[in-house]
Amino acid sequence: MNAKRLAAEKAVEYVKNGMVVGLGTGSTATWAINALGEKVKAGLEIQAIASSVASENLAKQYGISLIDFSELNIIHVTIDGADEVDPKGNLIKGGGGALLREKIIAYNSKEFIVIVDDTKLVNTLGKFPLPVEVVPFAVDLTLKQLRNLGSTAIIRKKDGKEFVTDNANLIADCSFGEIQDPDKLNTSLLLIPGVAECGLFLHSKVSQVIIGYTDGTVDFL
Amino acid sequence: MNAKRLAAEKAVEYVKNGMVVGLGTGSTATWAINALGEKVKAGLEIQAIASSVASENLAKQYGISLIDFSELNIIHVTIDGADEVDPKGNLIKGGGGALLREKIIAYNSKEFIVIVDDTKLVNTLGKFPLPVEVVPFAVDLTLKQLRNLGSTAIIRKKDGKEFVTDNANLIADCSFGEIQDPDKLNTSLLLIPGVAECGLFLHSKVSQVIIGYTDGTVDFL
Repeated sequence: MNAKRLAAEKAVEYVKNGMVVGLGTGSTATWAINALGEKVKAGLEIQAIASSVASENLAKQYGISLIDFSELNIIHVTIDGADEVDPKGNLIKGGGGALLREKIIAYNSKEFIVIVDDTKLVNTLGKFPLPVEVVPFAVDLTLKQLRNLGSTAIIRKKDGKEFVTDNANLIADCSFGEIQDPDKLNTSLLLIPGVAECGLFLHSKVSQVIIGYTDGTVDFL
Repeated sequence: MNAKRLAAEKAVEYVKNGMVVGLGTGSTATWAINALGEKVKAGLEIQAIASSVASENLAKQYGISLIDFSELNIIHVTIDGADEVDPKGNLIKGGGGALLREKIIAYNSKEFIVIVDDTKLVNTLGKFPLPVEVVPFAVDLTLKQLRNLGSTAIIRKKDGKEFVTDNANLIADCSFGEIQDPDKLNTSLLLIPGVAECGLFLHSKVSQVIIGYTDGTVDFL
């Protein structure tokens, strides 16, 4: 059984009629959108907002009703994947490059449910390079500041070109080694002028982590 | 005598041959560019970087050599104005909407010299609404977070349309009343996903504040 799919289907059980649902981005979040789509076809009535164009398009294919941000008063629940999860529930996200929009949606949701397979569990964050979204203006100065904090900071490329985010920014992939204090590092990064957002999601913003295993079982952190 | 010009001309005395100079934006910074331009015509050799297209164009008119960010290793001194200055040297900037680029340049400079006329001095920051640069995605959620911190937060308009920054973001003008702890507020604002930067410049990043008076005198904070 697909472990990502298991976690996604368990998370979707939290979604009830009338809710506004935040849709994540990436392979695990896609399983959640699939599961939601099937429920909507079966009669579930929800409205959704998406953290990427890809997720928005998938939702449309299922006939999931999308709400405009200007009409939005509340997000009841957001379901999204993660690249790493530590035992407290701190996350690294942004492998797909949508971290800024994902963080806006997650941090503004009443419930933020994270879905992963067990390969994403780590004792300490940091094996996965931390994605940091930076503005293109004077990016070399910003990279220098990121390196002063003790990381490699390499501008992400795709097909030989600089990867550009949905917000027309760049991503610096930053290896810090083991991240002992995610809260402190998050603040240090955001205080750098030129950093738009970083891929650390703090456990205080996470309601639930659902873990799928290839043996067909599901667990909670 | 023009008080802004007096402060600007005093600041330019700090610029020596061979320096890389950060150019600010706004009416006071323009006086500094004028003064630098005259010195360059008289033989001063510098390279400059600008925080806005307007300042860059003015520098070009004077024949000031502009350095590309990718070739930049150091900024020796940046000279820029401010909208408010408190007795410790904390600033509010961003009335002109260039706060993100101004902050990147200022915070990456060895010396950051602030030039103001005496009307900008206040006992406590906050009479001038604090400009906060926000990403357009889900801006209503971000405005709600800004209001939760105790401010009005009004999207800046120009000629009936939303004002758009050089980074394709929006400006939320936020009246907080008296800002008792600029350092804490700066961190609280930058921790909000969707906030790209705010117009608080902390005194620890300011080397010198030069104040011009209409009676022709100049003073230092």
